[in-house]
Amino acid sequence: MAPHWLPHLLGVDVLKHLNVALIGAGRMGMTHGRVLAGVQGVNVVAVCDNKMAAAAQVAQAFGARAVTELTAVLQDPGVEAVIVTTPTPTHAEVVARAAQAGKAIFVEKPVADTLVAAERVVAAVARAGVPCQVGFQRRYDPAYLEAKRRIEAGELGALEGFQGVGRDPAAPALKFLKTSGGLMVDMGIHDLDSARFFLGEVAEVYCSGGALAYPELAEHGLFDTAVATLRFISGAVGTVEVALRAPYGYDIRVEVWGEKGRLRIEKERQHFVTYLGEDGVWHDYPRNFEERFPEAYAAEIRAFAENVRAGRPVTPGPEDARESLRLALAAQHSLETGALVKVQAFGRKENT
Amino acid sequence: MAPHWLPHLLGVDVLKHLNVALIGAGRMGMTHGRVLAGVQGVNVVAVCDNKMAAAAQVAQAFGARAVTELTAVLQDPGVEAVIVTTPTPTHAEVVARAAQAGKAIFVEKPVADTLVAAERVVAAVARAGVPCQVGFQRRYDPAYLEAKRRIEAGELGALEGFQGVGRDPAAPALKFLKTSGGLMVDMGIHDLDSARFFLGEVAEVYCSGGALAYPELAEHGLFDTAVATLRFISGAVGTVEVALRAPYGYDIRVEVWGEKGRLRIEKERQHFVTYLGEDGVWHDYPRNFEERFPEAYAAEIRAFAENVRAGRPVTPGPEDARESLRLALAAQHSLETGALVKVQAFGRKENT
Amino acid sequence: MAPHWLPHLLGVDVLKHLNVALIGAGRMGMTHGRVLAGVQGVNVVAVCDNKMAAAAQVAQAFGARAVTELTAVLQDPGVEAVIVTTPTPTHAEVVARAAQAGKAIFVEKPVADTLVAAERVVAAVARAGVPCQVGFQRRYDPAYLEAKRRIEAGELGALEGFQGVGRDPAAPALKFLKTSGGLMVDMGIHDLDSARFFLGEVAEVYCSGGALAYPELAEHGLFDTAVATLRFISGAVGTVEVALRAPYGYDIRVEVWGEKGRLRIEKERQHFVTYLGEDGVWHDYPRNFEERFPEAYAAEIRAFAENVRAGRPVTPGPEDARESLRLALAAQHSLETGALVKVQAFGRKENT
Amino acid sequence: MAPHWLPHLLGVDVLKHLNVALIGAGRMGMTHGRVLAGVQGVNVVAVCDNKMAAAAQVAQAFGARAVTELTAVLQDPGVEAVIVTTPTPTHAEVVARAAQAGKAIFVEKPVADTLVAAERVVAAVARAGVPCQVGFQRRYDPAYLEAKRRIEAGELGALEGFQGVGRDPAAPALKFLKTSGGLMVDMGIHDLDSARFFLGEVAEVYCSGGALAYPELAEHGLFDTAVATLRFISGAVGTVEVALRAPYGYDIRVEVWGEKGRLRIEKERQHFVTYLGEDGVWHDYPRNFEERFPEAYAAEIRAFAENVRAGRPVTPGPEDARESLRLALAAQHSLETGALVKVQAFGRKENT
Repeated sequence: MAPHWLPHLLGVDVLKHLNVALIGAGRMGMTHGRVLAGVQGVNVVAVCDNKMAAAAQVAQAFGARAVTELTAVLQDPGVEAVIVTTPTPTHAEVVARAAQAGKAIFVEKPVADTLVAAERVVAAVARAGVPCQVGFQRRYDPAYLEAKRRIEAGELGALEGFQGVGRDPAAPALKFLKTSGGLMVDMGIHDLDSARFFLGEVAEVYCSGGALAYPELAEHGLFDTAVATLRFISGAVGTVEVALRAPYGYDIRVEVWGEKGRLRIEKERQHFVTYLGEDGVWHDYPRNFEERFPEAYAAEIRAFAENVRAGRPVTPGPEDARESLRLALAAQHSLETGALVKVQAFGRKENT
Repeated sequence: MAPHWLPHLLGVDVLKHLNVALIGAGRMGMTHGRVLAGVQGVNVVAVCDNKMAAAAQVAQAFGARAVTELTAVLQDPGVEAVIVTTPTPTHAEVVARAAQAGKAIFVEKPVADTLVAAERVVAAVARAGVPCQVGFQRRYDPAYLEAKRRIEAGELGALEGFQGVGRDPAAPALKFLKTSGGLMVDMGIHDLDSARFFLGEVAEVYCSGGALAYPELAEHGLFDTAVATLRFISGAVGTVEVALRAPYGYDIRVEVWGEKGRLRIEKERQHFVTYLGEDGVWHDYPRNFEERFPEAYAAEIRAFAENVRAGRPVTPGPEDARESLRLALAAQHSLETGALVKVQAFGRKENT
Repeated sequence: MAPHWLPHLLGVDVLKHLNVALIGAGRMGMTHGRVLAGVQGVNVVAVCDNKMAAAAQVAQAFGARAVTELTAVLQDPGVEAVIVTTPTPTHAEVVARAAQAGKAIFVEKPVADTLVAAERVVAAVARAGVPCQVGFQRRYDPAYLEAKRRIEAGELGALEGFQGVGRDPAAPALKFLKTSGGLMVDMGIHDLDSARFFLGEVAEVYCSGGALAYPELAEHGLFDTAVATLRFISGAVGTVEVALRAPYGYDIRVEVWGEKGRLRIEKERQHFVTYLGEDGVWHDYPRNFEERFPEAYAAEIRAFAENVRAGRPVTPGPEDARESLRLALAAQHSLETGALVKVQAFGRKENT
Repeated sequence: MAPHWLPHLLGVDVLKHLNVALIGAGRMGMTHGRVLAGVQGVNVVAVCDNKMAAAAQVAQAFGARAVTELTAVLQDPGVEAVIVTTPTPTHAEVVARAAQAGKAIFVEKPVADTLVAAERVVAAVARAGVPCQVGFQRRYDPAYLEAKRRIEAGELGALEGFQGVGRDPAAPALKFLKTSGGLMVDMGIHDLDSARFFLGEVAEVYCSGGALAYPELAEHGLFDTAVATLRFISGAVGTVEVALRAPYGYDIRVEVWGEKGRLRIEKERQHFVTYLGEDGVWHDYPRNFEERFPEAYAAEIRAFAENVRAGRPVTPGPEDARESLRLALAAQHSLETGALVKVQAFGRKENT
């Protein structure tokens, strides 16, 4: 079997591209731009950013046109799909407009910054009947997929627990942190989404943390490190560890256990090279998300393009993503208040 | 350098033994009996158990005498030290009497079943001025010692967190479980003691769990699986996962992280043999505590014997062990009530 | 740093393609077809095979035209480069003609089936002054590149030795084996090329083997398993193990050692997933060359395209490849005759 | 199951010792002294060395008597067994005398320095009918035993090959090297004995090497690095790499492969601790034979004592050890002459 990210010759038609517009040419826009450059079957025809210089820089690499007005993209019948990488607070507005314009939509996580806004996305997408995929790329990582396959094949038996670790090598700029929604929302949401992906919905979350790596964050009420316990609706339990800094690199781990065994996901090295020297044995470690998840970022976009092209459903959709947001907001609330939070009720009153 | 658990030739005097009595010939007594048979420098001269058959069986292997009365052992001037492996609720009484008799004491963990009883041990030992070591054998495991050494050498910088996993391959008998003090006290205490060993005292613990592996335990109010978050006085945080069952064996792990790095302790295989076959790559895993901690059980006894013989302090002592018990009881309380527990205040009123 | 096989956004111009023709649509042609479908910057405009059906099948996937006559490709000014994956005995003829036509050339290993033919390739390429790269893809594997980088940075000090293992999961068809030039030429050449890549030219080779996995090969004078010792001109020594069958998958390993340390290259797992179950610990292993070397096959073609486009030299070139062929033929001679073979003199008389 | 080197309580009778004399208090005598101090069931009652100071130093640790005359030991009826760790050239004489005196004998490897002398040992032991075990301790290593068990259980199917690596951290003194019999005899014999242990007798050996780590050895005609190919009588093949220096420690590896799979033996770390820091991932490596083989040295002595006590055969015996010596001498001959050597005929004329 060829690795799933190597397109098979038969069945691949490299000429039938999906024409996409990239909306947002900031940090995640750049990341997706790099990814798109390596994905067959996707044609970047336009790049939109309210800063023309940013849009132009990315657009140039693709021979695409750069625009500052979203309307120009949405009215263009040559744009079949949009890839939304704007700041989180704008997601709901952009997605709603793109849905109304009938575009297929790929939007970065989190789907929105509030549950109210997430509901707006869900509603707009449902109304328009367009495909909408949210960017939880880990679900497309070969290791996560392999683990999921094994779990569904019953290799663990009934599931009993989850352990997640998510550490970035270093914190982003304070300016970003202050508007990101908090540690558990911006970053922990990935690990919490993985918990849901493998074990289903969470009933209770307790979260504790501090500003340990960057004590200055405390002045802003921010956290850089947190630990949490989860109790799933199924009765299973779990722990999550999240941090903005890991001196050794980008540490993303998942363990799922059940009555028959335990699966551990970790990219424990970057290169398949081991050095033995006077001081012992050494190998490298992934340093950032591009080293850890290159296949996953490409695979989620490729799956999006193929499924849109084929008229198949895309996943995860906005309702699924809203539940990961609910869990993340609940964890953040626990972190900030010290309260044990019932997840399924959390944020429900926001909708009333 | 020879492995530290291989006695060095020079400095070893295999003739000068410490004469000990083994008090308690049940499950842990058998374990310590097996260990003692392999430790140079310790002579088992008596075995005491209120069941003569049990005492006799162990005693015979050592050519020791079997007795049923503790007094007979404590009055014997040929007994220099006692190794106490009786049921936990009897520890305080046995240790107090041994202390009064002037014997050096090694007592299995937990030091007692209640904080009041633990205080009684502390007081009796202090009054008698005898050496008293509590059996947290993991502190003597080569890997734990190596990790401790590296941490104290500053390899992690300021410490930020702890992750502990402790899983037995299978639950002991229900009868034992019902009187063991609960999951976090009988079993979790090891992992919580490790947390204290590496990161110091804990301020808060939150614990959640269930009867997932053995649902029938729920009828008895017992848990077989628990997860916890810890907040240390230093500000560091941590998670602990404890379970009575691991289908794959005996899974004991510690991770400690800090500003400069992270240390991971895991005996990830039992034999240094790897098999590559049609289905992939395979190796074994430790199946029980005797496979995981053979050096540690021997090393703690050897350290006890050498330190007693040399008049040096033994460690961990009863006050240290009392604090691990406090943390374990606090975690058990959280597990049973769902409350976040302040550890340092916990059980203090018991003493008033 | 982004993984080196993820094209960086800046500097990537996805519109400027190199237009290539694929010559040969057999087994390796299919492999390169799959690879080409995933490499940005290369446009397959024609596929040539003397079997029209084979050519058409591959061509269709690229929207390229299928031809059976090499002349049609070589006369087409729209074809800038050719990728030659025809049977080895035809390499010299095809490459010579392509060189004469002024095309940039990528040719699969081995560069030819005899040293005389290899010389013909070297001469034709030199005369035409065209770029010519031979397909030793392992040299472009991220692990090999990382190891090479470390060695050149002096991490091993003076080099002392090499250990190579190369095992296919299962033998190709007997028909192919009978015309492949033998175990050390068709397959061992990769490992021997790696030896040269890391430690330079070889002075002596001794090779021993048998038909152990497929005893029926013995009737045809064929070997499926061989071991060799190498003595390099530098004085370093090495071992090589080659086999047509490995029940556990595709086992390609290199170790290089020197005065300061040792580097080991092995892709010891395919997915970053570990399973712990009743029988111990398990993970998968690469099953074939597409699982082991997906980045390498893409990277060698990408490097070829980029270097041709930029007017930079390509590597390894035909002279380099001829020396790997010389070593492989010498090893094969030793395997068949039991003689210790002086490599540098081997085959020299063929040229006189 | 308890680790096999932890004496089981039942069945262990710590009082019934085998009374042994240690003959030779040099480097290997010290090693065995350290080991003996940790083995239950063996009583060192005398230490014999022609240097009284050396004998006395070791004897003191055991409360044993020190002697300089072998006769004094052999005439002592209180000495049941001797452990011979004198220089190799004296083995035959010492063993023959001990056999004549009716002592059970444990003798360090190699059994003798020449095949003639080895025959003398075989004959003397056969004549006296005493137990005689030769010190190939690797055969008692838990990993080797586990691998052997799996092979005998058929997990590899028909055996096809062997790969051995044996590297010391640093060379012994030149004085020792000059009288040690050469690289393949003093050191390589361990790896060659492993080859025989797993795959049976060897038909042909070719060996090549140099003085790469210590160029000054070349002046004395000595080698510090060698590689070899083996062809077994069964048709299987193999490679061996031997070196006096490994900057990273003590590197002893065995791989055995067959039709169904491959087994790899390597102690790839000393402590079960992994450090993740700024520079990547790190763990330690065994630095010397005492770190690699502590269980093995103890296990071979324990097995010797138990088997002697129980009247069971001991293994490996002198005939087995003679064949490992034959193979080692053949390899050394190949290394020195460049000839391919037929092993089974090698040295036969020495006996005529």
